[in-house]
Amino acid sequence: MTKIHPVILCGGSGTRLWPLSRKSYPKQFAPLLGPESLFQATARRLSGADFAAPLILTNADFRFIVTEQLAATGIAPSAVLIEPAARSTAPAVLAAALWLAQTDPDGVMLVAPSDHAIPDAAGFRNSVAEALPRALAGDLVTFGIVPLRAETGFGYLQLADAGAARATTPQPLARFVEKPDVARAAALLEGGDCLWNAGIFLFSIAAILEAYRRLAPALYSAVEAAVAGATADLGFIRLAPAPWQGLEDISIDYAIMEKAGNLAVLPYAGGWSDLGGWDAVWHETGPDAAGVVCHGPATALDCQDTLLRAEAPGQQVVGLGLENLIVVAMPDAVLVADKSRAQEVKGVVAALKARGAPQAEAFPRDHRPWGWFESLALGDRFQVKRIVVHPGAALSLQSHVHRAEHWIVVAGTAQVTVDDTVALVTENQSVYIPLGAKHRLANPGRLPLTLIEVQTGSYLGEDDITRYEDIYARG
Amino acid sequence: MTKIHPVILCGGSGTRLWPLSRKSYPKQFAPLLGPESLFQATARRLSGADFAAPLILTNADFRFIVTEQLAATGIAPSAVLIEPAARSTAPAVLAAALWLAQTDPDGVMLVAPSDHAIPDAAGFRNSVAEALPRALAGDLVTFGIVPLRAETGFGYLQLADAGAARATTPQPLARFVEKPDVARAAALLEGGDCLWNAGIFLFSIAAILEAYRRLAPALYSAVEAAVAGATADLGFIRLAPAPWQGLEDISIDYAIMEKAGNLAVLPYAGGWSDLGGWDAVWHETGPDAAGVVCHGPATALDCQDTLLRAEAPGQQVVGLGLENLIVVAMPDAVLVADKSRAQEVKGVVAALKARGAPQAEAFPRDHRPWGWFESLALGDRFQVKRIVVHPGAALSLQSHVHRAEHWIVVAGTAQVTVDDTVALVTENQSVYIPLGAKHRLANPGRLPLTLIEVQTGSYLGEDDITRYEDIYARG
Repeated sequence: MTKIHPVILCGGSGTRLWPLSRKSYPKQFAPLLGPESLFQATARRLSGADFAAPLILTNADFRFIVTEQLAATGIAPSAVLIEPAARSTAPAVLAAALWLAQTDPDGVMLVAPSDHAIPDAAGFRNSVAEALPRALAGDLVTFGIVPLRAETGFGYLQLADAGAARATTPQPLARFVEKPDVARAAALLEGGDCLWNAGIFLFSIAAILEAYRRLAPALYSAVEAAVAGATADLGFIRLAPAPWQGLEDISIDYAIMEKAGNLAVLPYAGGWSDLGGWDAVWHETGPDAAGVVCHGPATALDCQDTLLRAEAPGQQVVGLGLENLIVVAMPDAVLVADKSRAQEVKGVVAALKARGAPQAEAFPRDHRPWGWFESLALGDRFQVKRIVVHPGAALSLQSHVHRAEHWIVVAGTAQVTVDDTVALVTENQSVYIPLGAKHRLANPGRLPLTLIEVQTGSYLGEDDITRYEDIYARG
Repeated sequence: MTKIHPVILCGGSGTRLWPLSRKSYPKQFAPLLGPESLFQATARRLSGADFAAPLILTNADFRFIVTEQLAATGIAPSAVLIEPAARSTAPAVLAAALWLAQTDPDGVMLVAPSDHAIPDAAGFRNSVAEALPRALAGDLVTFGIVPLRAETGFGYLQLADAGAARATTPQPLARFVEKPDVARAAALLEGGDCLWNAGIFLFSIAAILEAYRRLAPALYSAVEAAVAGATADLGFIRLAPAPWQGLEDISIDYAIMEKAGNLAVLPYAGGWSDLGGWDAVWHETGPDAAGVVCHGPATALDCQDTLLRAEAPGQQVVGLGLENLIVVAMPDAVLVADKSRAQEVKGVVAALKARGAPQAEAFPRDHRPWGWFESLALGDRFQVKRIVVHPGAALSLQSHVHRAEHWIVVAGTAQVTVDDTVALVTENQSVYIPLGAKHRLANPGRLPLTLIEVQTGSYLGEDDITRYEDIYARG
């Protein structure tokens, strides 16, 4: 039996879930609903006997987060394709189909966003199995979510047959419906023939390539060139930038689905959420009888319809007498918002950006190819960082003009190069890197290396770095 | 001319301003309204040509905070008396009077709480000067605040003459009025003859001692014994515990003022607040036209009647669409409360205490006789602290059973003893303290010493310490 290729779209960077979702570390990588991130949960949902290894599409900034998070799930990707620029879903899905066609032209692919919540993974896989025969027969199957409320934030799929929204087999589509106003949304919900458009698709590689060739020939040629010119880079596949840059920013709905004749819609009645705002997160995380959700070290006293998220283990969050509020506390940023204005959190990010606050886009934990670091304290002429280096990883050979560094290993073993000497430094040992010295930090071991770095000097910016060699080919 | 002895009562530990005010570092030491703490502002208000050096009454836990904060103002106390236990104001004021009588039996003393806001310091000193002749004549003068609203949270002073609340000279008192209900408070405000009882008094030492002797003879004997048995301890005066422990917990209002015949009340029409809750702090910190106060890196978007306090420089606080809320964010605790329920913050502290959260009572910055420290990161088998040692101060000679320590000096110069060696360690140098080694850290310099300590070991509690010598006589 053919195995389905999961194609996970992982390049988005939403701001409506700030401060947990930021440009540098967006929503799909955050553990919003449990110990795993939405991306990890998506990869896990689309694994098992019926599925081939997933193909991931992302951008250059997120590539190491993708590999790190996948590694933690134990799921190996068939490839990670890097989009040279964000161009919505039509180019991305086509690139995935062309890439997969090289090795499995008769295969079937399932396209899924990486930032949705679908709690019943087994139920969803059953729906995919239900849709498979139609996909194998050459139809383009889209999954429609049985609506629970008159939602104005989504587009709708209107089925050809009255009451068909409750069917459990693929149904013919009448038309796509744009995001409706409140009255129209109520009517759509009432009708029993409309589903939410969730952007999840199942089709054969041959059928979707044929559709693109016929309905978007210019796009087809350009993406074909981008895939043909793709280059391998440290385990990633970089699509060729030149043909990609000129692409139109267009969704697969507009470019293909709304024009294709061979569409089928499979209603999905299980739980689903796009987690498109903190109000949705509140709803999906199981409010108690008073409508209260507490996450982390949070305490609600006489609160109603309120979400309290304490994201830092050492920071207690207490709500007293609150109604209809969202509180999200992180070590570097706290959001307190009226829940009915959750969609305006985008404006918060814009306001912080205008003020020059790094919290608008940067995450406190800075992910790098070799691991991550975070600043623990920044004082006059000194900074303290926690640095974690993955097993087998190494930082670049580098030097600094304005700062000296002390490293104290607190877990694991470091291989430290300082000018002409190389030494192993183990737990509870320390090493000093004088200002100007060429140095490199590596983790030759099998366990993560954790060290505390104390920087001292007149200027402590990240840009005081001269790189001499870098296994990750950074400048 | 006689100089007035300020007597500043500094032993309270209110919880209604949690998380900024905690048992271990209460409200009077917090910079609530400006760069100085309320205690510092009180000491500064009661300084200048008309005043002698202040006498401070506090408890053992706060004694080093008192000296550190006073030193920063440049005001030297005449003495710091340590109350062996909290016993309200009647015993404290008597102890102060007896102490001052030893050197200035003909003097005048001004009793003031340390945690009130009186923005117009010069205006208040003018009122004190206005009251002085009556105090010298043997009356007990209490300052009454001209009320601005029908407040139910304070007791009232009802004057003998109608409309006398607007007088600028001392007035005869008709009676004390207990905290009223709402209707009664409105009537009191309406009458024009009532003032708020602020607990600020001016009297001659001879007159107040005579009043205690006559009205509270048992209390007088016991406090006299506590003062007679007081012992000097590192610059503090410890009142004798045995007679103090048996004292009744009673205010000077109940014990003396309500019974004394020789009372006069001076109306004070300048600004005053007891800062008895976050609603009062909001009011005193100058809300803008929308009723919004932002403090620190805080941003209010479309908020009304809301206080946003970002107490950690690196933590952005954003409010979106809030109404009538209090938000106070500290590195280890965030409070979000309905402003009209500010008085219930006490209950928050009780709830956290019941959960065993250290944030209920402990402050992130732990003040010690030699300076302070704070934890920057706590991980598995390691902890990072920032330690600041005052010039001339020294930690105890100590050792640890379960942890080793790395010290990196980032500002100032340390004198470090490790077993038999003593060395100076300056900026950008580090030193290692092996597990079990007897060690001592001192700051022999003229500037504060800042160092980063990285602890490693299986157990990192503060109680893993054996002290061999301590200049502060701790166990």
